[in-house]
Amino acid sequence: MASSNDVMVTSAPTRSEFALDMWYVAALSAEVSDKPLARTLLNEPVVLFRTQDGQIGALEDRCCHRALPLSLGTVDESGLRCGYHGLLFNCAGACIEIPGQEKIPSKAKVTAYHAIEKGPLIWIWFGSELDSEPSCEPPEYSVHTDKRYLFDGDVYHYEAPYQLIHDNLLDLSHLGYVHANTIGGNAKIHMNAEMKVESEGDSVRVTRYMPNSTPPPTYTAAYPFAGQVDRWQEIVFYPSHLEIWTGAVDVNTESLDDPNRGGFHLRGFHGVTPQTAETSFYIWTQASNPTNNPAETMQLVIEQTAETFDEDKVVIEAQYANMQRFGQKAMLDIHVDVGANRARRIIKRLISAK
Amino acid sequence: MASSNDVMVTSAPTRSEFALDMWYVAALSAEVSDKPLARTLLNEPVVLFRTQDGQIGALEDRCCHRALPLSLGTVDESGLRCGYHGLLFNCAGACIEIPGQEKIPSKAKVTAYHAIEKGPLIWIWFGSELDSEPSCEPPEYSVHTDKRYLFDGDVYHYEAPYQLIHDNLLDLSHLGYVHANTIGGNAKIHMNAEMKVESEGDSVRVTRYMPNSTPPPTYTAAYPFAGQVDRWQEIVFYPSHLEIWTGAVDVNTESLDDPNRGGFHLRGFHGVTPQTAETSFYIWTQASNPTNNPAETMQLVIEQTAETFDEDKVVIEAQYANMQRFGQKAMLDIHVDVGANRARRIIKRLISAK
Amino acid sequence: MASSNDVMVTSAPTRSEFALDMWYVAALSAEVSDKPLARTLLNEPVVLFRTQDGQIGALEDRCCHRALPLSLGTVDESGLRCGYHGLLFNCAGACIEIPGQEKIPSKAKVTAYHAIEKGPLIWIWFGSELDSEPSCEPPEYSVHTDKRYLFDGDVYHYEAPYQLIHDNLLDLSHLGYVHANTIGGNAKIHMNAEMKVESEGDSVRVTRYMPNSTPPPTYTAAYPFAGQVDRWQEIVFYPSHLEIWTGAVDVNTESLDDPNRGGFHLRGFHGVTPQTAETSFYIWTQASNPTNNPAETMQLVIEQTAETFDEDKVVIEAQYANMQRFGQKAMLDIHVDVGANRARRIIKRLISAK
Repeated sequence: MASSNDVMVTSAPTRSEFALDMWYVAALSAEVSDKPLARTLLNEPVVLFRTQDGQIGALEDRCCHRALPLSLGTVDESGLRCGYHGLLFNCAGACIEIPGQEKIPSKAKVTAYHAIEKGPLIWIWFGSELDSEPSCEPPEYSVHTDKRYLFDGDVYHYEAPYQLIHDNLLDLSHLGYVHANTIGGNAKIHMNAEMKVESEGDSVRVTRYMPNSTPPPTYTAAYPFAGQVDRWQEIVFYPSHLEIWTGAVDVNTESLDDPNRGGFHLRGFHGVTPQTAETSFYIWTQASNPTNNPAETMQLVIEQTAETFDEDKVVIEAQYANMQRFGQKAMLDIHVDVGANRARRIIKRLISAK
Repeated sequence: MASSNDVMVTSAPTRSEFALDMWYVAALSAEVSDKPLARTLLNEPVVLFRTQDGQIGALEDRCCHRALPLSLGTVDESGLRCGYHGLLFNCAGACIEIPGQEKIPSKAKVTAYHAIEKGPLIWIWFGSELDSEPSCEPPEYSVHTDKRYLFDGDVYHYEAPYQLIHDNLLDLSHLGYVHANTIGGNAKIHMNAEMKVESEGDSVRVTRYMPNSTPPPTYTAAYPFAGQVDRWQEIVFYPSHLEIWTGAVDVNTESLDDPNRGGFHLRGFHGVTPQTAETSFYIWTQASNPTNNPAETMQLVIEQTAETFDEDKVVIEAQYANMQRFGQKAMLDIHVDVGANRARRIIKRLISAK
Repeated sequence: MASSNDVMVTSAPTRSEFALDMWYVAALSAEVSDKPLARTLLNEPVVLFRTQDGQIGALEDRCCHRALPLSLGTVDESGLRCGYHGLLFNCAGACIEIPGQEKIPSKAKVTAYHAIEKGPLIWIWFGSELDSEPSCEPPEYSVHTDKRYLFDGDVYHYEAPYQLIHDNLLDLSHLGYVHANTIGGNAKIHMNAEMKVESEGDSVRVTRYMPNSTPPPTYTAAYPFAGQVDRWQEIVFYPSHLEIWTGAVDVNTESLDDPNRGGFHLRGFHGVTPQTAETSFYIWTQASNPTNNPAETMQLVIEQTAETFDEDKVVIEAQYANMQRFGQKAMLDIHVDVGANRARRIIKRLISAK
């Protein structure tokens, strides 16, 4: 039966403007419960929920009957029930009950997404076809299962495109200016640190070493350093997220490029997922291995991380608003942009590969 | 004298996208006083006011001089005076005074609307031509003058097209889901009630009977039922409004299809008037005949009605926002949509009849 | 090096829709300090600041590197430093430092505006070419340096085009309606006052005399009038601002058209600067020569002036919103519009002269 419902508007933007055939971070696990969560990802309104038997559901957030967001409905034993006329959908998107009606038409269904929970993260697959099967597993991130680390995280919404967040994270030279009041410290030290940029496949690695430095207050509070330290910053970009590993060891005690180095570690996971072409979700965790007062120090680390990201958000959103005000106007590249520009070329290649 | 005023924008949408040559509910009488009321109806900004001698004025809400909304002016003995330079307009739209200027040009006038007060309602005529005379009287609604009933009402603004409100009112099967916390009760009872849909001219009647039911708490509080009841719901759609008559009698004591049936009655008047193609006014009264503590029970009935309509507003506005997000995407019809779809066909026919 | 930054939007509107090759009021001097002030003028986002050595800087509010508003940066000894990666710009717009990089490319620069401080005002030049030199000095306004007067001022933002503010100030007949609760007094007196309109070059002068009037309460509180007064209102329009001189002398003691007349004076300076084609800044000062309790009376004058301008803002913004609702619809001119219409013709000629 064709709908007689004429109150319609023109078509919305599609996922095709993003890199596809990959997993994105949809949410923190802790966000997904028996209370449906509405979240637009890659222009597509999705409802995320967890059934009583622990399944993660990720459905198109629109009932196929009268278009109410399913996120206004209620999680049932076997799926999600619409809050308008009670249609019930299972996690595969099939309507399995229409109250007061025996026959369920085959068209009674909504798009279902592949969603997988891995530790504190919910990953979601966006294929180049709406119904394409995942061609790989979601990315591994060993820190979340490494007993040496404590971690916590949060979700930030940005009024800015995801690539501006990539830029920000790939270029830590901004620490001295944006985070002057928190973790910045001496701006010139960050600007002048030696930087190495390497690419491999769809990833970019930016490394900086700051040998024989004075450890920042958080470091000395968390770890029993003897005096001066050798510090490192390692940023690895992947199309769906970045991993940032910073830390320090006692000066001249270990090789900084040994991945088994000891000392004090801060290991950030930064899921960067487009909401639309102009807005983003930033879903992060921060892990650490404090030895002095671990729980307390960890709480301090999370608070400082959040404060720092608040500062980044102000800058990035102001930057994007200004780009919109000024329109198409060239930007001048400087030395610190090398890593970010490589990441942009990777995203560009992935988008045109579809 | 041509205006030298160049600060202008492109033309606004017109009334022609709505059913015309009919009366719409403009306001509750209680809203219209010597303090001007600004209200856009069918895309047209109107100012409603009541002069000292009791005339209802309904004028284009724009002074013909410098375009100030006349609703910012003051009601004078004989009309409405602009709040910028003091031009005075009578209820026929003619400018009858320009302060400091003797001659009043013939172009000094604004559009006047036919507006009629009938009981608690102000009706306004929208013809297919701007100056066409009403071809009929406003609709009758005997409940407002029936001494057996008490009533009260309110005006709701909707961020949604008027036809979504029609849909909602013509299909009470949503009671069990949308109003689970108020009047819903058992969802399945509402879904499974037998439904009869009849059309006649530009009206649609949907009838449901629920024989031998347990009366809801409001019913027993208001009326001395002996035990089980026979309940009915009658919804009559007209292009300008809906009349919804629900109620109950003691089981097996009267014929439910007798319009003179006794028992406990709830009689709703639901004026649904487009503000624009995307927003609406919902101007309603609810009447009842409580025998136990009439005034108190009536107040309870109005409070519960308002609470229920608040729930509908949340759903309908979310539905429309979602329709806009998803754009042109087919909707699946189910059994409960029969009445609503007939009403949509009537509106469609009336619009194309112009 | 071309930018790889693809996240861009379409081009913004330009200054060419405004009268150019002239000075506009950018700000009150008191607004410009070592804390950068962001202000869009003639569609162009500008940052205004004052360096330690007292220079007034007026730069494009966008870093040439990654487009952050420079107004989020910090004023340095020798210029303004961007708050993202620390690029430093001098008042001529040249980048004079890129942290961590020795060579400064010649493209590292932003647009600089000519800005001059004169008494309580900051003037800014907008030429028909982005880099054209001022062809004249900013306008003189002797009142700001006249020892007989006290003055103060403020900046108002309007959601309305600048020409609607011109209209309002050139036609004081609205006093009786818009300002009925403040300075209006008897509406008919204002409407019927004799009006003289004269033009000269790019200016328009509107004069009204109200001989043998009762002085308003503010006048008698401020000045020792003997009884009845002869009042005047002189409004002089210039494309960048208006000067409004009102006042009164004891009846039959002086010639009202003598610019050296005594009595009580109120002398308003009204800078009207487009922010965009649809929004404006109204930067005003009000001067007076109270003899009774000068400081107290002056404070009262400023409060009443601000209250009056608040009333105008409500009317003008409502007028513009209504013009947008109604679109292209002719406005009827009446006798009081003569001055305002001449001013509109001057602006129109200046815009097409480019």
